[in-house]
Amino acid sequence: MKLVTAVIKPFKVDDVKTALEGLGVHGLTISEVQGYGRQKGHTEVYRGAEYKVDFVPKIKIEVVVDDEAVDDLVSAITTSAQTGKIGDGKVWVVPVEAVVRVRTGERGSDAL
Amino acid sequence: MKLVTAVIKPFKVDDVKTALEGLGVHGLTISEVQGYGRQKGHTEVYRGAEYKVDFVPKIKIEVVVDDEAVDDLVSAITTSAQTGKIGDGKVWVVPVEAVVRVRTGERGSDAL
Amino acid sequence: MKLVTAVIKPFKVDDVKTALEGLGVHGLTISEVQGYGRQKGHTEVYRGAEYKVDFVPKIKIEVVVDDEAVDDLVSAITTSAQTGKIGDGKVWVVPVEAVVRVRTGERGSDAL
Ligand SMILES: Nc1ncnc2c1ncn2[C@@H]1O[C@H](COP(=O)(O)OP(=O)(O)OP(=O)(O)O)[C@@H](O)[C@H]1O
Ligand SMILES: Nc1ncnc2c1ncn2[C@@H]1O[C@H](COP(=O)(O)OP(=O)(O)OP(=O)(O)O)[C@@H](O)[C@H]1O
Ligand SMILES: Nc1ncnc2c1ncn2[C@@H]1O[C@H](COP(=O)(O)OP(=O)(O)OP(=O)(O)O)[C@@H](O)[C@H]1O
Ligand SMILES: [Mg+2]
Ligand SMILES: [Mg+2]
Ligand SMILES: [Mg+2]
Repeated sequence: MKLVTAVIKPFKVDDVKTALEGLGVHGLTISEVQGYGRQKGHTEVYRGAEYKVDFVPKIKIEVVVDDEAVDDLVSAITTSAQTGKIGDGKVWVVPVEAVVRVRTGERGSDAL
Repeated sequence: MKLVTAVIKPFKVDDVKTALEGLGVHGLTISEVQGYGRQKGHTEVYRGAEYKVDFVPKIKIEVVVDDEAVDDLVSAITTSAQTGKIGDGKVWVVPVEAVVRVRTGERGSDAL
Repeated sequence: MKLVTAVIKPFKVDDVKTALEGLGVHGLTISEVQGYGRQKGHTEVYRGAEYKVDFVPKIKIEVVVDDEAVDDLVSAITTSAQTGKIGDGKVWVVPVEAVVRVRTGERGSDAL
């Protein structure tokens, strides 16, 4: 299994969620973060205003999935979160060695 | 070493903390997140109210531990966070290649 | 590639950011977390006040970098976040199997 983490523009969360539903993703976790990429020091537009500050608000999405679902998941996030403007975000994939559903104690793919 | 991440019901944090203390866990990090599992679209109860919205508030707990402590840690979290109702949460385990204690620069198990 | 995660004292974020800029780090993500280390139950000073509560506010910094940059990055974070007092923080390193820049779809080192 893998943990796919995406840091995206906040107004794109609904589009990404819809795209993931289309893939049959059963669960995900989001949180509020801030960050910057290559253009730090330059301006980035957020809610119609130009940000000159270093840190811009973003949403982090985390999804644990089976190995065979990773490629489609990463593609779906990338496509659905894309505006073509700077600051669209970053996606990364980390290995997961075990997953458990707390309610039942199920492990592995059955826990997803 | 491993990073154990758990996403649980907020009112269960104290129970989980107590369980981890019993195991001799020396440190942990928590944050506020939101998420959904398999019943998205259906209702999930939070603070006595039924949530029909997609995202339900959860707490994420992160603990870096030695390899030999992982199984007991995952079991303790699962047991102490369990209510038997949907939405109890998810636990996953990721490999950690290095750990440092900032104050001293210690590395590896000594840094835990 | 690796994901370097640091949990540090909030007032040290600027120092760490400056240190990372000096290394040519192009992007990072921060979030508000809370935690405790070995002295839980004892007091830890935050904003001039002694905290007797369990959880102390911290900032989590996450940076995805190329393998060859990890050692310098971890050293720079450790040095710049250090005050010498308890609660200075923890740094850990996790393997990353893929990275994508959302705007362009670039992958691997080109995406950093
Ligand atoms: N190397 C990184 N490590 C961790 N988080 C990152 C990294 N790079 C970017 N991020 C996160 O992703 C967000 C969006 O980054 P961004 O899309 O600006 O990347 P970029 O490489 O500058 O691409 P672009 O040129 O399209 O702006 C940042 O605000 C930050 O939260
Ligand atoms: N695949 C996943 N990836 C990332 N986070 C997840 C995933 N599945 C669930 N979560 C997180 O865990 C929380 C709790 O999930 P939940 O317990 O509802 O899982 P479930 O599989 O639906 O189990 P149950 O049938 O017991 O409800 C979610 O709100 C979400 O934050
Ligand atoms: N094992 C751990 N797993 C996850 N997070 C941790 C762990 N240990 C510490 N942390 C996080 O790092 C923060 C700072 O920890 P802290 O610096 O107090 O570690 P420590 O080992 O007690 O070192 P010191 O003796 O210098 O205080 C904690 O508030 C918590 O958020
Ligand atoms: Mg950018
Ligand atoms: Mg559920
Ligand atoms: Mg401490």
